[in-house]
Amino acid sequence: MGVSIPAPVIALLTDFGQEDAYVGVMKSVIATRCDARVLDLSHGVTPHNVAQAAYLLSTAYTFLPRGTVTICVVDPGVGGKRRPIAARWPSGWFVGPDNGWLTYVLRDENRGHTGPGQNGLPHDWEAVELTNSRYFLDRVSRTFHGRDIFAPCGAALAAGTPMKELGPGIDTLVTIDIKQPLEQEGRVTGCVLHVDHFGNLITDIPASHLSDSFTVLVGGGTIHGPATSYQSAEPLIALVGSGGLLEIAAPNGSAHRLTGIGVGQPVSVATRRHRDTHS
Amino acid sequence: MGVSIPAPVIALLTDFGQEDAYVGVMKSVIATRCDARVLDLSHGVTPHNVAQAAYLLSTAYTFLPRGTVTICVVDPGVGGKRRPIAARWPSGWFVGPDNGWLTYVLRDENRGHTGPGQNGLPHDWEAVELTNSRYFLDRVSRTFHGRDIFAPCGAALAAGTPMKELGPGIDTLVTIDIKQPLEQEGRVTGCVLHVDHFGNLITDIPASHLSDSFTVLVGGGTIHGPATSYQSAEPLIALVGSGGLLEIAAPNGSAHRLTGIGVGQPVSVATRRHRDTHS
Amino acid sequence: MGVSIPAPVIALLTDFGQEDAYVGVMKSVIATRCDARVLDLSHGVTPHNVAQAAYLLSTAYTFLPRGTVTICVVDPGVGGKRRPIAARWPSGWFVGPDNGWLTYVLRDENRGHTGPGQNGLPHDWEAVELTNSRYFLDRVSRTFHGRDIFAPCGAALAAGTPMKELGPGIDTLVTIDIKQPLEQEGRVTGCVLHVDHFGNLITDIPASHLSDSFTVLVGGGTIHGPATSYQSAEPLIALVGSGGLLEIAAPNGSAHRLTGIGVGQPVSVATRRHRDTHS
Repeated sequence: MGVSIPAPVIALLTDFGQEDAYVGVMKSVIATRCDARVLDLSHGVTPHNVAQAAYLLSTAYTFLPRGTVTICVVDPGVGGKRRPIAARWPSGWFVGPDNGWLTYVLRDENRGHTGPGQNGLPHDWEAVELTNSRYFLDRVSRTFHGRDIFAPCGAALAAGTPMKELGPGIDTLVTIDIKQPLEQEGRVTGCVLHVDHFGNLITDIPASHLSDSFTVLVGGGTIHGPATSYQSAEPLIALVGSGGLLEIAAPNGSAHRLTGIGVGQPVSVATRRHRDTHS
Repeated sequence: MGVSIPAPVIALLTDFGQEDAYVGVMKSVIATRCDARVLDLSHGVTPHNVAQAAYLLSTAYTFLPRGTVTICVVDPGVGGKRRPIAARWPSGWFVGPDNGWLTYVLRDENRGHTGPGQNGLPHDWEAVELTNSRYFLDRVSRTFHGRDIFAPCGAALAAGTPMKELGPGIDTLVTIDIKQPLEQEGRVTGCVLHVDHFGNLITDIPASHLSDSFTVLVGGGTIHGPATSYQSAEPLIALVGSGGLLEIAAPNGSAHRLTGIGVGQPVSVATRRHRDTHS
Repeated sequence: MGVSIPAPVIALLTDFGQEDAYVGVMKSVIATRCDARVLDLSHGVTPHNVAQAAYLLSTAYTFLPRGTVTICVVDPGVGGKRRPIAARWPSGWFVGPDNGWLTYVLRDENRGHTGPGQNGLPHDWEAVELTNSRYFLDRVSRTFHGRDIFAPCGAALAAGTPMKELGPGIDTLVTIDIKQPLEQEGRVTGCVLHVDHFGNLITDIPASHLSDSFTVLVGGGTIHGPATSYQSAEPLIALVGSGGLLEIAAPNGSAHRLTGIGVGQPVSVATRRHRDTHS
């Protein structure tokens, strides 16, 4: 018997929710056109929240199998002027509207050299605008390009179609404004980037900015960290989460509900001991 | 190496939600009996809402791969007198309780000749009542025929079992009462058929009833249409959605929350300009 | 053409919800390491509710295909002292934290000889502590062992790795305290074990404790049973549900919303007629 090659993976990330058949229809279009394994990253992005999709993708993309085609459809501008695009990077492809959901990926792959606006591609990337309607559904609606453009173009890539068949090359991609944490005078100031299903407050402050012992100021209170796990007698703890970012959690509860703190609220960390106050 | 034939597709549509293991158990029964690719159309149908399932299926069924077995379990009458059925149409099979979830499909495939009650099959369809318990699970409960009857019978069809093995042929299927929009005196009156995840109000008025320029009356207000995309400075817009139906949307928001309008509420459209008022 | 062997099945049960990418990342790790069919039992377990996960698994595990690797991650103790484990039983494998989610399975497979605390394995089971970091991701976080330990170890089992490669054998597994219904004087007293998506109140009283005709006392009211299906003119009915347990339902509605009764509340059943009162 010959060696069986696993089917390619197509990963989906949308704000479509689960109650309509929108995701199922995208999967139907994909299943009609290729024999891929489809993997849901999330369909629970808050409607139109490109920044949240960008964050969620940043937590997941390095774990995807090589060769994965990731299709993201958080697309408030569907039917308008934003470009439909595909991008090839060393580990696979990204397909979706050109509206910023690749911002964190581009920042990380560009080693930080990315700001809001139009940004250049990392040196080992290529990108195209999806213009070849031969790869679209026969009828393209004005409101559901996930079904009509992104699913069939993603399926074409998974089936081995060269990306350059899908449209002309482009040199830049749109990125959104993501603030970097500010470090000064032994203090890092960032913000809450995401509130997860457990109510954990995930900040934009990476572990590299933290010392072995630190104090978090958030919502008028202070938390001494780091905790080493979610189990603690303290009502609130601060630790480095699974994505390498400072996270505030409530053991066996929701830090979000306990504190009322949500996305965008400031968090600051004293990263050095103020020796004078302890002497 | 030989050509690999993709596994058949089984599509699922239920009101089971995602928090219990009901869907997972159906998928377990399917995986035990065949090597199908399982595709979720939705499990978020409002409990017992056969009309909503029928609508969602109407938005999806033409996109399913040929040969798909679609299993729908929205089944308030489980354990009662309603028949379990399977139907073969040119592109695949449908399996579930005979309670009306095929109404829109039958209307479209019968070219409109379908009313509420018992309806004849389209000329190129066949249907059976599922009576051959050899294809059921060994023990059939009174409350979960999705697991005990529909999943194993659907898996049998996906595995190549001839449909006539599953039970005796039947000539009619139950359909529910779906109102058609009423057209008179340059005005079409329909209703809101579905409120989607984004809060878009999807009506039962097809694009074919609309002129190039029209005015929608809904909830005491008027909207001039059509918009060409969801991006607009107007608080409410009217456009033709991805299913070819008139849709009312709030750019970057929820028309449902903004207006309080829900399923069943009337929508009327003036489809001709009243030239006299403009002269 | 050779016979195609279906890919092994990996079943997932977590409290991760659907809005983050946590489940998608676990599936990415799995897809990177083996060609399994992944099947979602549920990701809607209430956060940290090990008892609910244990109940949901009990409704599903006998339906899984032989050879399934079931990974359960409801893990409030992640990063703490609880052991990561894998267990082999005659029909497959279980992988997750050793915190009690296997309690009902162990009770059923041990024929009732299981109490809270540390419990011995059924005679045809084997178990190991997951200690061989060669099978983990290269970097193991303190907060996401679903991604870093359980997904890759489950994938290793699905790919054919002998379980003993994953760590040293263990003789006991942690079980949680699950009360058994109390039978005395023609009355069984149990409690509500689960409220499902439909608002059905599923009790811990098995059908074997019920007579052909019985009266349920719950929340100050009485219900005469059994009903034979969910269709009834009564506001509340009592019947044997799909898992063989006494269930209280509201025809076309939610018994949970109608009665306000939830998990843990007592339910008692008079299983014999009091003939004297009828004579």
